[in-house]
Amino acid sequence: MAKKIIVIGSGAAGMTAASTAREHSNDAEVTVFTEDEYIAYSPCAIPFVLEGKIKNFESIVMHGPDFYKKERNIAVHIKTKVTGVNMDKKTVTTADGKEHPYDSIIVATGGTVFIPPVEGANLPGVFTVRNINDGKAIQKAMKGAKSVVVAGAGVIGLEMAVALKHAGLDVTVIEMFPQVIPRIFDSDMAAMVQEYCEQQGIKFVLNIPIGSIKGSGKVEKVVAGNNEYPCDFVIMSTGVRANLEIPNMMGLDIGALGAVRVSPTLQPYKKGRLVKDVYLAGDVIMVESAAAPGPTMSQLGSSAVRQGRVAGINAAGGYAFYPGVLSAFISRIGDIEAGGTGLSKGLAEYYGISVVEGKATGLTRARYYPGGKKITVKILADKDTHKILGSQMVGGEEITGRVNWVTAAIIKGTTIEEFVSGFENAYCPPTSMVMDIVNVAAEDVAKKL
Amino acid sequence: MAKKIIVIGSGAAGMTAASTAREHSNDAEVTVFTEDEYIAYSPCAIPFVLEGKIKNFESIVMHGPDFYKKERNIAVHIKTKVTGVNMDKKTVTTADGKEHPYDSIIVATGGTVFIPPVEGANLPGVFTVRNINDGKAIQKAMKGAKSVVVAGAGVIGLEMAVALKHAGLDVTVIEMFPQVIPRIFDSDMAAMVQEYCEQQGIKFVLNIPIGSIKGSGKVEKVVAGNNEYPCDFVIMSTGVRANLEIPNMMGLDIGALGAVRVSPTLQPYKKGRLVKDVYLAGDVIMVESAAAPGPTMSQLGSSAVRQGRVAGINAAGGYAFYPGVLSAFISRIGDIEAGGTGLSKGLAEYYGISVVEGKATGLTRARYYPGGKKITVKILADKDTHKILGSQMVGGEEITGRVNWVTAAIIKGTTIEEFVSGFENAYCPPTSMVMDIVNVAAEDVAKKL
Repeated sequence: MAKKIIVIGSGAAGMTAASTAREHSNDAEVTVFTEDEYIAYSPCAIPFVLEGKIKNFESIVMHGPDFYKKERNIAVHIKTKVTGVNMDKKTVTTADGKEHPYDSIIVATGGTVFIPPVEGANLPGVFTVRNINDGKAIQKAMKGAKSVVVAGAGVIGLEMAVALKHAGLDVTVIEMFPQVIPRIFDSDMAAMVQEYCEQQGIKFVLNIPIGSIKGSGKVEKVVAGNNEYPCDFVIMSTGVRANLEIPNMMGLDIGALGAVRVSPTLQPYKKGRLVKDVYLAGDVIMVESAAAPGPTMSQLGSSAVRQGRVAGINAAGGYAFYPGVLSAFISRIGDIEAGGTGLSKGLAEYYGISVVEGKATGLTRARYYPGGKKITVKILADKDTHKILGSQMVGGEEITGRVNWVTAAIIKGTTIEEFVSGFENAYCPPTSMVMDIVNVAAEDVAKKL
Repeated sequence: MAKKIIVIGSGAAGMTAASTAREHSNDAEVTVFTEDEYIAYSPCAIPFVLEGKIKNFESIVMHGPDFYKKERNIAVHIKTKVTGVNMDKKTVTTADGKEHPYDSIIVATGGTVFIPPVEGANLPGVFTVRNINDGKAIQKAMKGAKSVVVAGAGVIGLEMAVALKHAGLDVTVIEMFPQVIPRIFDSDMAAMVQEYCEQQGIKFVLNIPIGSIKGSGKVEKVVAGNNEYPCDFVIMSTGVRANLEIPNMMGLDIGALGAVRVSPTLQPYKKGRLVKDVYLAGDVIMVESAAAPGPTMSQLGSSAVRQGRVAGINAAGGYAFYPGVLSAFISRIGDIEAGGTGLSKGLAEYYGISVVEGKATGLTRARYYPGGKKITVKILADKDTHKILGSQMVGGEEITGRVNWVTAAIIKGTTIEEFVSGFENAYCPPTSMVMDIVNVAAEDVAKKL
């Protein structure tokens, strides 16, 4: 009999899992249940639609349920809430009361933006940046608005700040940590990004959490410390928490980071014992770090897709595993790109690792080739093992490939000496310097070891 | 007493060696002898000056002898021929008859374009693309010229062909192999580059060597097979041979590829025995391949710089070694980039390796993000070991970082399965697809293994 595979969730993890399960099993019945209206799009695109770089929200939706039905024989039920999962009977119950049997199930319920529990957080005019309806609501709020407060200076907060500034609004970013892009960027690299944003006219209030949001009937101002910041609306980019309603319903073990603990095959545990026929993927899980001795939450679209692939293969009866993750990331903030991989200095030190750091600044093309952009690369290595731990980069172009390059080195346990002596760079004047700035940064680390 | 270090040659290898020796020894006397007039520039830039992308030849010269004297305390003697090296007395003799004692010597005499021994090859109007004077002579020849034949369809030949076409000339490329970019590109990837060049209006004559060059007093036409190609001048981009005059004078062992055989410390051999206090770098040497069981000639500016660094450290009394090389390269040919690393299919098969290849085509940005360029990535793996052997890419932007990324994987002996499961890519819509085309190509290989 054909295997029944149910996927809960239609984000990058869920839809990749469904498609991968189909690829690996021609005759399986693959069904997706999702509360969402729009499926198969990248929430990472939302700031760029609001900035006007992408023409509209419709264009970021790759496919609708019809496509999945017709092209992949996957039944996608949108606006459909799952109300129960019975792991003994192996059934899923939907809000309409129907029971759906499964042979294997993939839980990809994603995450929700964490809203700090402050006064006024539920006022109209407080938005998150999580799905297309959020984006459309923000687009509506932008009309006639003059000023906005962005709470949280992570990469999404900064992408939003630049988008809103370029749309003509007065933008203030409030961040409880003393720097932008906290945790994944060191303060020196963060300062470069902040400086760029300030040149665009964005104001920063650092080291102070949002105290409250005031307004009668709708947002009128944000209070932080002793100051008030009048604004027409507020963007909450204050981090993402796993959606645990269904995992909790299933009794799955939740890890220390507040997400579902999984095996490398992406199976959950229940009271410490591995659960059969259940797989998870995306923002709902925590996974092993490839750089640090401990779990991490990756919360990236690229990670969700890779995890979805593993869950899909395994749910279809194949075998795949998800190894440790470095969470390589890249963000376009106006005209600059900020990317990184592995551990920041602060995070390495949190794990008790002694860090040596090196840095180099140069150009993305030969000095004399027109159009070259400034680029700064920082590389961190373990003082004891000399292995590369992480890297951060800020520059005008071509950061993505460089991040992937150093990511490869870290995954394979490369020492800084190996990188310096053996890691070649391709060169031609229009696309790089003869020794790439990544190599120069690595040499700078080597000198200090 | 201060150590005396003599460098012969002022290209990327020689000047890097001199600068590195200085860095590693404050009190050494560092002297460079070179027959050239211009030093410290990248010959790779010449086609882009001729294309008008770089404003003039002066701008590609980074530094002159004065800079080296003043800033680095390095004495550079231009237009100075070395006529003898006495390895017993440890002296160098220059054309003026003077003897210069050394403690260690670095030979970086580079290479010369190989001119096929055909009739008319020494006619006025036959140019190579090797140094600034070549570039200036070509620039002069372009004035009033209508048509040109480029002999050799390697990357320099193609960069030149596009440059001359964009300057308004009628361009015919004649290549003795049946494809462009032979040896380092497979025919399918080469066909993409050829197609682009043909769209620019460049004509190709493949699988036929140049028979002769005719003209009375200057170039008038090229004969290949049974056809004649009228032209005002000829560009010879027919490969580079090591300049062996000085190594031969020194009696150094020459390897099977017609270049000096060196140890990983870049020391030569004499009748099979390692020679002390002599180091070589750049196009004059052959080195170990990191992908194939045998020696290779890297002949890249980026390799020359890395070798110069090793030679400089060792000549100054330090210790560095040059590991196997993959010769990662990148070329900008008009609006496209062609890059690669490691072995091509043909070269792998030459070494008796069974090859499995995978390929993917996509975009450099998310599908809906404006300005994304087409990119095709091919990856080759060893059928027996599953290790990645090589990669070739053609696309509109951001190829360099991707080449370096796969280069890192090959250097570290990564299997295709490891790449598929563990090699993350950083993602944001303006700079990549959620799963990078490199990852998709790797999956394609994995499916076939």
